[in-house]
Amino acid sequence: MYTLYSMQRSGNSYKVRLALAKLGIPYNLVEIDVLQGQSRTPEFLAKNPNGQVPLLEVAPNRHLAESNAILWYVAGGTTLAPEDRIERAEALQWMFFEQHSLEPNIGAAYFWLALIKGGRDLQRHALEDWMENGYRSFGVMEMHLGKHAYFAANRFTIADIALYAFTNLANQCDFELARFPAIRAWLARVEAEPGYVPMHWQPQLTAAQ
Amino acid sequence: MYTLYSMQRSGNSYKVRLALAKLGIPYNLVEIDVLQGQSRTPEFLAKNPNGQVPLLEVAPNRHLAESNAILWYVAGGTTLAPEDRIERAEALQWMFFEQHSLEPNIGAAYFWLALIKGGRDLQRHALEDWMENGYRSFGVMEMHLGKHAYFAANRFTIADIALYAFTNLANQCDFELARFPAIRAWLARVEAEPGYVPMHWQPQLTAAQ
Repeated sequence: MYTLYSMQRSGNSYKVRLALAKLGIPYNLVEIDVLQGQSRTPEFLAKNPNGQVPLLEVAPNRHLAESNAILWYVAGGTTLAPEDRIERAEALQWMFFEQHSLEPNIGAAYFWLALIKGGRDLQRHALEDWMENGYRSFGVMEMHLGKHAYFAANRFTIADIALYAFTNLANQCDFELARFPAIRAWLARVEAEPGYVPMHWQPQLTAAQ
Repeated sequence: MYTLYSMQRSGNSYKVRLALAKLGIPYNLVEIDVLQGQSRTPEFLAKNPNGQVPLLEVAPNRHLAESNAILWYVAGGTTLAPEDRIERAEALQWMFFEQHSLEPNIGAAYFWLALIKGGRDLQRHALEDWMENGYRSFGVMEMHLGKHAYFAANRFTIADIALYAFTNLANQCDFELARFPAIRAWLARVEAEPGYVPMHWQPQLTAAQ
């Protein structure tokens, strides 16, 4: 059985929990409190030298990092991954967009405004850039969602899971989505998908850990 | 035949040119000067709403963005992509690491120090963060390369191409790799691989465009 190292309030960790829940894949959940330094212990760094969650043990002592690579791995061969060669690449395109253009802005704003006490004052200058670049990325998503119901393959895939996590957190860190109606309709569509679970949901612990 | 929209001095564009050269795949090359606003024209934004290069036309009027998604697409089924399920995910892990932890720091420093006149003064404060985070990412790579010759699948793959592009540009934007011997040995290894071409290399133009 997989072991997932995850933080409950981490958007990147939530992606993996959402995918595993939708696929009905059981796993052991290990909570790592990044804010308490638990991803920087020698023990954890031996598993992931980059010191981040989520991290999935895919085979004994073999650990996969980077939320979107984990999504790709667990969804391989399921309906959550496109089969067509171009559509697979388009899903990856949006997942790279997410890690390069969305997460660094929304994720940073969420971290400092929603998780760190006094973070707003510490990051006052950077916040302007995160807001500007975050809104720019939402603009790109809005343009796509004005013409397509989902990000790739005309159906719900891991590309939607990747982009949903931090879009869903935007209202917790100053972003206002009123002027992005297509994004708001897509958020509702994702939440109506079968097997959807919200961020605070936790899997039932298995009897034998 | 593919059409690649690329900028000669763009590290992300170079990744795709290097992969296509190694695979011996012919293509039409269209130079887009991002610094002159050529990726922000209505015509280009219709192809890529995110306004970035590289961009590959994979089918008539169907364009794929994000350098690492393009690498995944063109290398599919070739020796440049791992076949094993875990190794494929590990290649993606490093490619997401590249876009999230390496490129935003080295790429930003390269852009403002090597491409923009007066950029150093404009970005003096941000530069400190880029240097610190860039060196941190090199540290993670150094740890991996101390134990492995390549990033995934024990051979040269698209993960190496993705990470090579900006590591190769680091010495043009203040980064000093002297204290990363494993990275320097890997750079030399990549450059000794058959079919390697440097960043300034250009494909011969095909007779009929």
